Amino acid sequence: MNFLNEVTARFPDAISFAPGRPYDEAFDPGAVAGYLDAYAKYLERDRGLSQRQVGGLLFQYGRTKGQIHELVAATVANDEGIEAPPESIVVTVGAQEGMLLALRALFRDAADVLLVASPCYVGITGAARLLDIAVEPVPEGPSGVDAVAVRAAVERVRASGRRPRALYAVPDFANPSGTSLPIGARRELLAVAAAEDLYVLEDNPYGLFARTARHAPTLKRLDEQGRVIYLGSFAKTCLPGARVGYVIADQTVTAPDESTTPLADQLSKIKSMTTVNTSPLSQAVIGGMLVTYGCRLRVLNEERIRRYRERLDALLDALDRHFGADAGVGWNVPDGGFFLVLSVPFEADEEALTRSARDHGVLWTPMRYFYAGGGGERQLRLSCSYLDMGEIDEGVRRLREFTSGGGRAGAPSSRAASTTVKDK
Amino acid sequence: MNFLNEVTARFPDAISFAPGRPYDEAFDPGAVAGYLDAYAKYLERDRGLSQRQVGGLLFQYGRTKGQIHELVAATVANDEGIEAPPESIVVTVGAQEGMLLALRALFRDAADVLLVASPCYVGITGAARLLDIAVEPVPEGPSGVDAVAVRAAVERVRASGRRPRALYAVPDFANPSGTSLPIGARRELLAVAAAEDLYVLEDNPYGLFARTARHAPTLKRLDEQGRVIYLGSFAKTCLPGARVGYVIADQTVTAPDESTTPLADQLSKIKSMTTVNTSPLSQAVIGGMLVTYGCRLRVLNEERIRRYRERLDALLDALDRHFGADAGVGWNVPDGGFFLVLSVPFEADEEALTRSARDHGVLWTPMRYFYAGGGGERQLRLSCSYLDMGEIDEGVRRLREFTSGGGRAGAPSSRAASTTVKDK
Repeated sequence: MNFLNEVTARFPDAISFAPGRPYDEAFDPGAVAGYLDAYAKYLERDRGLSQRQVGGLLFQYGRTKGQIHELVAATVANDEGIEAPPESIVVTVGAQEGMLLALRALFRDAADVLLVASPCYVGITGAARLLDIAVEPVPEGPSGVDAVAVRAAVERVRASGRRPRALYAVPDFANPSGTSLPIGARRELLAVAAAEDLYVLEDNPYGLFARTARHAPTLKRLDEQGRVIYLGSFAKTCLPGARVGYVIADQTVTAPDESTTPLADQLSKIKSMTTVNTSPLSQAVIGGMLVTYGCRLRVLNEERIRRYRERLDALLDALDRHFGADAGVGWNVPDGGFFLVLSVPFEADEEALTRSARDHGVLWTPMRYFYAGGGGERQLRLSCSYLDMGEIDEGVRRLREFTSGGGRAGAPSSRAASTTVKDK
Repeated sequence: MNFLNEVTARFPDAISFAPGRPYDEAFDPGAVAGYLDAYAKYLERDRGLSQRQVGGLLFQYGRTKGQIHELVAATVANDEGIEAPPESIVVTVGAQEGMLLALRALFRDAADVLLVASPCYVGITGAARLLDIAVEPVPEGPSGVDAVAVRAAVERVRASGRRPRALYAVPDFANPSGTSLPIGARRELLAVAAAEDLYVLEDNPYGLFARTARHAPTLKRLDEQGRVIYLGSFAKTCLPGARVGYVIADQTVTAPDESTTPLADQLSKIKSMTTVNTSPLSQAVIGGMLVTYGCRLRVLNEERIRRYRERLDALLDALDRHFGADAGVGWNVPDGGFFLVLSVPFEADEEALTRSARDHGVLWTPMRYFYAGGGGERQLRLSCSYLDMGEIDEGVRRLREFTSGGGRAGAPSSRAASTTVKDK
């Protein structure tokens, strides 16, 4: 992604569909004090803590598993119907640390392989690389990873003498593809996981941001066999700058000596070697936000849900208007989230990205970045979460201009007639 | 340490010399807003950022290497005379993440071995275990790890066909031993590191808290050959609940293909796979504290330096008074920090700890917890950082009572005549 960052820095005035980051809200620094206060009042009133104890919880070292686990448990129960004992929750430094902890706890044998949806969020492949864990891609269909593709990957891995240990998936509005898994496919996926003794790492950063009414329960909610380890994040739903996420790990794991321990305690033990504990100050701010909104992220996020829906609608609408029946260009129509994929009739590589930025003032992310084993060569990821409505329309207009020039040799764009075109 | 936590929970009224945590100050939640404001004003006034940009820095995702690196650079220059380019600094989730990143960046070969002072802080051995890195203990003398012991360990490792890659050390008021390395020994250690192509991971959480005027410069300050990677923490000097530390990594590393990259950039790349970035909110609070005190931790910590000096003095004084010429019990006299080691004429094991808590109302940490390869069987770590002055005196009185009963069979304590004594 370094190249992307460099191009972005070189062309600061370009409209960028590249970053997957949340919309830059005018968050008032004064609000932090308000949330800290709300959390402190909750601890005093609902939990019976003294002021000194509250100070200790906010400003000292804290419990390795975290200290807002009861609030997180209440929130996933309210929002997702997930019933998780608070003790099964580990509060982490974002979902990224959750991935690292879960992988380290589950993978102990060099023959263990992680299956990942392909294309895939780079955070999970990075965490796997850090721990020298082998990765096997599971090609996504138009509705994400399905049971058939997973079973085929399981067989490939077994045939190579290794063991498929877990599958990483984003069933709701995936990054980068925007796909969502229908409810039937979810049930089939869980059945395969149970049959093949596979854990499922369900990452759900965007689930709240539905565009349409089609919305299936999370895998965790549907899981009756204890296969799903759920990775949550408050980055998109509360405050990115707090860096607070969590893992729901209500399984027990069996050691070689047949003794069993709660998986959450295993994660906690590993966390004591990575970050010791998640900033109590950050947890307190998130805790205050949860308390203030009755542990209901759908209430807290009413405005954001509306905003992201509006943006994705606007992006889809602009694509329809500007590209129309352009036979060479296509895109998927996600039911929610931040992303969609645009397919173009030319190599969407770094050279194309530079041309797009320099000659047309528009940035995007090459989909090839998200494929571990090759793929996505003629696709680009468009993110609309960060943009204003006007930018989305103008950005798509520029994209159209760019793909006209870049996609069809001999039809250079109006802004850069001299651009050389590579279409192989 | 789980056993220690359990005993502590079972005997909540015991006076505890066990936790190494900072004194529980009455930190005012309102002060957080003040520090956020100070940091925001600094960004606007000194760095010319707009209010919107400031909001982005405080509340959005942030730079992986951190965003208070200039302030950290100014602080280590002011406090320690360390001249580090801001770009060589990586802000981490406490020193623990710094250890993890540094180990992952330096150790890539299964034959690479980490030398650690023994006894040793469990955080570094934990991080090594997480990454499956082999550890070789270097026995500490009364003044910490010296060059002779390091050279002997290097030879042991080489003789086993492996490569000593780095040494972890706490040269100032070490945890758990309280030892400090004299300046001559520091120079010798650096010479050995240079001669043996060894990196030194210098961890310095307590250096500010000197009890006496004897105070040597940090290894990093004395390092002329680029051997030292410096691990810093704001947990003891600013706010534990922020979980902010840093690594100074101003080296360059050479890849197998002879290309070189700054070590700090390597750490940053690894950090993108562990926590992505350190909470910008937490960084902003620490940044605000640094700005408020002119990037001088000695000024910010005047009161704390006095408090910890007073406590360590009180502990040493109480030991003198209560134990006097008790030939069976001895202790070291650290020049600063939170810890000292008490040697007793019996096994200081978990059974003894239970007896100490139950029958005498006093807790401590068995030193054996800090030895990777055995050691410290008849030693206990005493920490005074967390206690009030009166508790220190009463705690030592109880310790004397406990050691009288536990150390000499047939001389049961006044409070627990039935205690069985194990002295092997």
